[in-house]
Amino acid sequence: MTQVRNKQVVLRDYVTGFPKESDMNIVEGTIILKVPEGSNDVLLKNLYLSCDPYMRLLMAKDRSFGDGSFTLASPLKGYGVSQVLESGRPDYKKGDLVWGITKWEEYSLVPSSLIHFKIEHTDVPLSYYTGILGMPGMTAYAGFFEVGSPKKGDTVFVSAASGAVGQLVGQFAKLTGCYVVGSAGSKEKVDLLKNKLGFDEAFNYKEEPDLNAALKRYFPEGIDIYFENVGGKTLDAVLPNMKFHGHIPVCGMISQYNLTQFDGVTNLANLIFKRVKMEGFIATDFYHLYPKFLEFVLPHIREGKVVYVEDIAEGLENGPAALVGLYTGRNVGKQVVVVTHE
Amino acid sequence: MTQVRNKQVVLRDYVTGFPKESDMNIVEGTIILKVPEGSNDVLLKNLYLSCDPYMRLLMAKDRSFGDGSFTLASPLKGYGVSQVLESGRPDYKKGDLVWGITKWEEYSLVPSSLIHFKIEHTDVPLSYYTGILGMPGMTAYAGFFEVGSPKKGDTVFVSAASGAVGQLVGQFAKLTGCYVVGSAGSKEKVDLLKNKLGFDEAFNYKEEPDLNAALKRYFPEGIDIYFENVGGKTLDAVLPNMKFHGHIPVCGMISQYNLTQFDGVTNLANLIFKRVKMEGFIATDFYHLYPKFLEFVLPHIREGKVVYVEDIAEGLENGPAALVGLYTGRNVGKQVVVVTHE
Repeated sequence: MTQVRNKQVVLRDYVTGFPKESDMNIVEGTIILKVPEGSNDVLLKNLYLSCDPYMRLLMAKDRSFGDGSFTLASPLKGYGVSQVLESGRPDYKKGDLVWGITKWEEYSLVPSSLIHFKIEHTDVPLSYYTGILGMPGMTAYAGFFEVGSPKKGDTVFVSAASGAVGQLVGQFAKLTGCYVVGSAGSKEKVDLLKNKLGFDEAFNYKEEPDLNAALKRYFPEGIDIYFENVGGKTLDAVLPNMKFHGHIPVCGMISQYNLTQFDGVTNLANLIFKRVKMEGFIATDFYHLYPKFLEFVLPHIREGKVVYVEDIAEGLENGPAALVGLYTGRNVGKQVVVVTHE
Repeated sequence: MTQVRNKQVVLRDYVTGFPKESDMNIVEGTIILKVPEGSNDVLLKNLYLSCDPYMRLLMAKDRSFGDGSFTLASPLKGYGVSQVLESGRPDYKKGDLVWGITKWEEYSLVPSSLIHFKIEHTDVPLSYYTGILGMPGMTAYAGFFEVGSPKKGDTVFVSAASGAVGQLVGQFAKLTGCYVVGSAGSKEKVDLLKNKLGFDEAFNYKEEPDLNAALKRYFPEGIDIYFENVGGKTLDAVLPNMKFHGHIPVCGMISQYNLTQFDGVTNLANLIFKRVKMEGFIATDFYHLYPKFLEFVLPHIREGKVVYVEDIAEGLENGPAALVGLYTGRNVGKQVVVVTHE
């Protein structure tokens, strides 16, 4: 039995307010590289880890999210791309590449139920399976097409538009023949949206003293679809600018996750006046569509018609800073942590 | 040409905050009881007028609601039951009973487009066409069945539950095999809900210091459908108590209409965690279903399986008090103003 060292990122303190790097620790554990006799677990070598906004919710002491919540002194859990070293289940074999929920460490023994999909297409960057070809991709796809029900010519607004999900929503909207405007938090991101990601317009919300006026400028006729990633003040400004029978797929509310006192949203009566449908969703509810999604998106990636911007942090020891950076908007594009390239 | 006196309720001042009786005036106008040559208008004798919460929005100086908004020194406009005295259109004849938008006065000359439906069934109280057989009935029907998508066994919460719409939602929910709880603002209303309207449970929200705890008591497993009539603090308490994939048809937010500073709703992230669909709607979008609705509801009324509680104010001069009373919850059941019984 081979016991090896196993570097880990563990939760040091439950988080209140904005998470800090010091809420996590890098520790050196050990692991026996063997699936216990009779177990269905799978032993994984982790290659890429995904930093996703929802993870903040699992760092709180509050156990609202049940078993998903992180445990003190244990590694964080999240999406990742991994290689199977040994498997207690016949459908996963040594050498298989998979994506799903794993732990923030070099090697993980996980229940096979946490593996979401085997990776079949490796002519694209493997890290994409934490982003465009993973949960964020499915989030954009299901949220925009299934929940948003877009039509050609619709006006679409996306917040956190250069993020892991937002950049895809914008590109999917353009493929559908929509007019799409994105908001983001820096000039660099705004330039990216306009010059690389094909948004019709983009603005820096931090430089708009009056979000309502900004939205009126970009959407004089109103918004058909608001793809909601941030919540709070942005949502409140959007509501009176919705068109009749508009849709608001609610993907995330990242502006709220670090607040102890949430922003109050005051303009909800517009849901009635404008007959708006606002619908929360979670990508996992749509994973049955994953094969259809790959069929749609892979050719677009190969032909360069859909691009994907990643922000790569090298090494587990840079994981805490990468994760924390999500909440201040430090990342440009999908934030990935490389555990190892091989 | 017969010129007759025409008592009217006119708007005296634009309303801010809670409306007061003194925001309206009773005036004696005159009207010529004749449809002008070549006009399509219809001359109506008004019998019953409907007091509906949305009317507050039209009393503000703010013209967000466009042509619908009330004009100073002019009669209020709203739903009513009227008799045709003379018609510029062949499909309405002298003596026909109709319901639709009319004015708060004894006689009105209105564009025929404001008449919604001819009344065909007169074996039920005529006043019902301002309530269970009018816009509020269609609101409950469309909102519960079309927007709410109820299933047998669903848990249903209704706010403003003894009101014009709420009392019907509760009864429709029971007919569907749901468990239904209502909230209202007095002991009398709570008794009505439990003893006459067939709600499984009911509570007085004014006597619940902790709405969240009250909801947990009545819905230990959570709420499948919240029929939203009030907004604000009630909505905020409901959101964390929704079940996965729950529905919130948003019919009204009466608690907000009189506020200059709206209550902030802070728990919207639960839309994501619970994958909840929240959808605003307006009954007029569903008027194509009115014949189907009558087919459903008339037999139930005749057999006493659906009942309807009305609060009747006699005479136009009592109209302002009746309307104002909606916003303090003075009415018990659907608030109607009788212009004349004959």
